[in-house]
Parts: sequence; structure tokens; C-alpha cells
Amino acid sequence: MYNRIYNFSAGPSMLPLSVLEKARDEMMNCRESGMSVMEMSHRSKVYDKIIKETESLFREVMSIPDNYKVLFLQGGASMQFANIPMNLLRTGKADYIVTGQFSGKAYKEAQKYGDIHLAATTKDENFTRIPRQDELDLRPDADYVHICFNNTIFGTKWDYIPDTGNVPLVADMSSCILSEPIDVTKFGLIYAGAQKNVAPAGLTIVIVREDLLREDLPAFVPTMCNYATMAANDSMYNTPPCYPIYVCGLVLEWIKGLGGLEAMYKINKAKADKLYACLEESKLFKNPNDVASRSMMNVTFRAESDEINDKFVKESAAAGFSNLKGHRSVGGMRASIYNAMPSEGVDALCEFIKKFEAENA
Amino acid sequence: MYNRIYNFSAGPSMLPLSVLEKARDEMMNCRESGMSVMEMSHRSKVYDKIIKETESLFREVMSIPDNYKVLFLQGGASMQFANIPMNLLRTGKADYIVTGQFSGKAYKEAQKYGDIHLAATTKDENFTRIPRQDELDLRPDADYVHICFNNTIFGTKWDYIPDTGNVPLVADMSSCILSEPIDVTKFGLIYAGAQKNVAPAGLTIVIVREDLLREDLPAFVPTMCNYATMAANDSMYNTPPCYPIYVCGLVLEWIKGLGGLEAMYKINKAKADKLYACLEESKLFKNPNDVASRSMMNVTFRAESDEINDKFVKESAAAGFSNLKGHRSVGGMRASIYNAMPSEGVDALCEFIKKFEAENA
Repeated sequence: MYNRIYNFSAGPSMLPLSVLEKARDEMMNCRESGMSVMEMSHRSKVYDKIIKETESLFREVMSIPDNYKVLFLQGGASMQFANIPMNLLRTGKADYIVTGQFSGKAYKEAQKYGDIHLAATTKDENFTRIPRQDELDLRPDADYVHICFNNTIFGTKWDYIPDTGNVPLVADMSSCILSEPIDVTKFGLIYAGAQKNVAPAGLTIVIVREDLLREDLPAFVPTMCNYATMAANDSMYNTPPCYPIYVCGLVLEWIKGLGGLEAMYKINKAKADKLYACLEESKLFKNPNDVASRSMMNVTFRAESDEINDKFVKESAAAGFSNLKGHRSVGGMRASIYNAMPSEGVDALCEFIKKFEAENA
Repeated sequence: MYNRIYNFSAGPSMLPLSVLEKARDEMMNCRESGMSVMEMSHRSKVYDKIIKETESLFREVMSIPDNYKVLFLQGGASMQFANIPMNLLRTGKADYIVTGQFSGKAYKEAQKYGDIHLAATTKDENFTRIPRQDELDLRPDADYVHICFNNTIFGTKWDYIPDTGNVPLVADMSSCILSEPIDVTKFGLIYAGAQKNVAPAGLTIVIVREDLLREDLPAFVPTMCNYATMAANDSMYNTPPCYPIYVCGLVLEWIKGLGGLEAMYKINKAKADKLYACLEESKLFKNPNDVASRSMMNVTFRAESDEINDKFVKESAAAGFSNLKGHRSVGGMRASIYNAMPSEGVDALCEFIKKFEAENA
């Protein structure tokens, strides 16, 4: 009807069709306000209702306890790579576990601000797995431990929540938030760029336990980077990214309508299982990662021959599957199958893989 | 047709009707990509064309010379209040001229980073005018001079570009950018939150002379706050606010279609002249500002009686004029008549003012 294609982009990525249709239908006049959401004063009654409803839905869908703040910020996960040490360092020590490119960037950025310890990494194994609990060299007096829960580029995911004792656990969930139920109480802070499972780019979610917030930070910390200030102003210290917050609300309504995160998980698990099964049957393509560390959102695969990989990318694009080319640091292919990717998209990709393999045996 | 109203919000504010219609029409499938702009990888060919075209149009419409970078950032003007001293301080000295609330906030934030001097303020006159050149106490060895070119809350605007000698001039143009031609070469840096004249909230424009950029900043500066890094990566160090950038492109096309900033200025001048003339004729309402310092974008007015002001706000809202209530720090009324406010909206407001005055004489 709209000539839409299956978009396997790692992010920004697909949004649910019904969400886009609602955004389109409300573009000229939203909720009888006589204006688009993009035109509303962020202090207006209509918009105030939108942001409050969105936060409330976020809390409901993710079962976020009352002693956690939900912040709607800007700057992406990359901005939080600095904000987290600037806000959470007290003694000056933090432990980082590096399992891919973004956790590596977070680790590097944090070094500007304190004594940052590499508690574990699987770099020597090309990030094909998540370290086990007994491999983590954690310091009991660290201010926090930082992990990236799902590694978008390498297609791996933590299959357990690491035990960090009394040290708060901080997790970048940019590419897996809202994909399955998560026990928020196990984390001190969860953050996510919105552009994969939540909303269009330009919105960053921070879920933080209240006792970790402190308004009195080192003098050099920009006011806009102070989580306590943002929390005290309900994410309205200045104009927030109003439109992505509105779309986030529509996405949360869609998830709730499907049955919440339990139902979302079942759908996502079925999609991922099907694609991994297809790759296990394949003689041409392989997923390089440990089975236990497989991501449910980003599925990487490659043939031994780069020529075959290039051919697959080219022919799949011509067949209406976009963005299957893997990240330049990994090569091969990557299918990002976030919440909004319909099961039919994964079915069609599996069929295409089989057809391609038959033609290129 | 859409039951839209005249929205006098100070920001976020009206967008041109044709821009909203195009965004709506392209929502499900933009430029035959099979997806919404909100779903596109920022590294995709289609999106790369969108951001490059937008930058190119920005340069064309504003006549930006080649030795200036145009950056698409996040965080609003408030984030730049810290970014500017973090990026531009060398000797550690900067001069600030405070002519309203936002320049006051910028002045306060800068004090975290250096020796910040108040070069002039009209606070004692309730910010009803812009200081004259001979009132500016500028230091010849400052790293920059900061001004806010249009004061959204108080409804004043610089009617001249101050002479700062060899010291770069930095201007917050959040509420007047794209409203008239500006000689960019007179400025070292121009910045603007997009949510008034440019695009929906979540995008911040920085136009900066290349020689002012330096990658090697103090260690505490977050990577995301380093203008040189953002410039070196063409605003793609991480995922930019893709959708607001796209809408910015549509707005620029609309301005170009009207005849560019010369034509835009004529339209804006005519709207503002009409409203100020109406207020001058009024016996009930007054604009408090010096004639030379009047803003073309934000027109404040009030009656002596707060009861009359409240009544006007209430009755105007009921008559379909939204957001006419003045900022809480000023009281009375404020009509923000940015680029997208049609002349008919100002005509209708003038008629309403006259009618209200006749009924409340």
C-alpha cells in the first residue's frame, strides 16, 4: 500500500506501521489542539499531558519502581558516555567491561574523569562472546560498573545480569531496551539512545535510581549534563526533544497493545530463533558468536568469501531488503530485527538466504 | 480545512503549513526509499543527501561564507551556554552583555569556565532596551563577546551589530535566525535552538568561523561538546537529530521559494509594523520597549490592570488565538510572530485587540 520495504538498519530503524500512520494523521492537528505536536509549546497543557503520559507508560511497560527517575534527554548514548562519570563518580573509581565498540568508546570517554579500570574484555576474541561472571575483575570500592547490554555491531548480548555486589550497575541498553522484560532494580542506571526501539533519533532515555543523583557536581560539569537538575525539572529544564517524546509515547502504546514486554519478548524471540536456525542450517553463512551470547536484536552472519558477502548485500538490496551490510569494523552482513521488524520480514529474509544459497552453492 | 489555530507560542512554534503537509505526505515513504525519514540510517545514501542538501540550503539562504562551518547539534541553546566557553576560551576571558533572561543564563553558565566580565546590561531598566555601543565596557584581550541578538521574553532585539574590534562576536539567534538577512562575517559564532524559526525542537544550529575551532580542549570537555570534533565529522560523530534536520530542509526550501531572506524580512517587517502600529493606537495596551530596540519576532504588550490582561488572555484563547500569555517574569501578553505566522494571523489579532478595547473601554 505504501511500497514500504523491510529495513534491517541498525539504527535509526523501523517504527511500527501503526505508529507512523498515527503520527501522519495527527500531523496537521493533534488532539484537537489546532496544531502539530512539533508546533506546541512544551509548557502547554496539551504537551504537558503528552510527556506525562509517555513517562507514565514507560514506567508501566518497563515496571520501573518509584525510586527511579525517567529522564528524556538529548545527545545520544555518546553524550551519556561523559555524563555518567561526571554524575556518578564520587571516589573517582569506576569499572568498565568492554564487549564491543560502544562500550569501548564509553570506557575511553570515562578516562577523562577518573580512575577507570578495565574489568574485563573479550577484544582478543573479536567480541564474539560476553565475559563470564568469574572473568570480571571488579573493585568493591568502585562508584559503578559499566556494561553495554546489547552490542549492536558485534551482535552479542549479556545473557545474565552481572553481580556487582553493592556497586551500582550502569547499562547502555540502546539496542535492546523495550525488547524484553528487565528487572530494573538490578541496575543503578539504564540509558538508551531512542533510535532503535523507542523513537526517532534525538531522544535519549536515562532511568536512574534517585539516591545516585547529586546536584552538587564538579564546577566544570555543564548544567545541561547534570542529571539531578534534569530530574528536578522533569526533563523540562529547557525545551526537550518534543516530537521524539511524542513518538515514544505512540510506540509504548503499541507495545502495551501487543501485551507488554512479555508478549514483545515472545515475538522477538521467535523472530531471532527463526533467523539463527536458518543460519545454523546454512552451509554458506555462519554467525560467529557464542550461542549463549547471541543478540536477539542484531544478527550477524557472513560467508567465508568477501565476494559472496558483497553479492549477497547487493542482491538482497535489489530484492527489497535494505541495510543488511554489516558494520565496516566487522564486515559480512547484519540483520537488525528490532521490535518494529514484522515476523514477515524475518520469514522473507530466511527464504531469501535459502534461495541465495541454492543459487550460489 | 484542518481546523488549525493561530499559534503565537514563543517556541516551539508554528511551522509553515506546506512544510507540515509535505512531512505528512512523506511520512510512510520518503523519496521512494520505502521508509520514513525517522527510520533511515543516518549513514544511508538517501539520508546523506537530505543532510547535505539541508546544509547547502542553509549556506545559500544565509549567505554563509566557506570559512564557516554549519553544525547540526543537540541540547538546545542551553547546552551551547557551556559549549561556547569550553570551546572558545583561550586566555580564559570573555565579555557578556546581558539583555534578558537567556543572555543572563549564558553569562552565569560561562562563569564555570573562566574570567567572565559583564560588559553591559539593561537589567535596571527591566531589559526594555538594548545598550548603545558607547555603553559597552569591552576588554580588547577577551576571547569573545557574547550577546543574545533577539530577546524572546522581553521582546527586544539588537538594532545594530556591536563593534568588538578584533574580538570575535558570538550571538544567540535562537528567536530571530532566518527572519532577515544577516552579515555572517560580522560574527565569530552564531547559534540557535531550532524550535522557533527553523525546525521542531531537538536541533541546535551552530555557525562557526573555522579558525576559532580547536580539537585540543581541556580534558574535562565531553567529546560530544567539542565543536572541532563535530565539524570534522560533518555533524555525524554520532546519530544526529535526523528528523528535525529533514524538517529544517523543508523550511529552508519554503523560505527560498518565497524569495529568500530579503523577501522573508519584508513579510516579517510588515507583520510587526502592523502589530506595533495597532498597539500605538491603543489606549488600553502598551508595548514597554524602546522603539529602536523592538523585536520583529516577539511583541509584548500589556494593560495597566492585571485583571484586563487576564481577561484578554482568556478571551483571545477562546477566540482561537493561542499562547498569547506573556512569560511569567514579564506578565501581560506576548505575540510571537515568527516566519511561519501568516499575515492573516496578525491581521486577525489586530482586529481582536481593537474589538476587545472597544468592549473594555
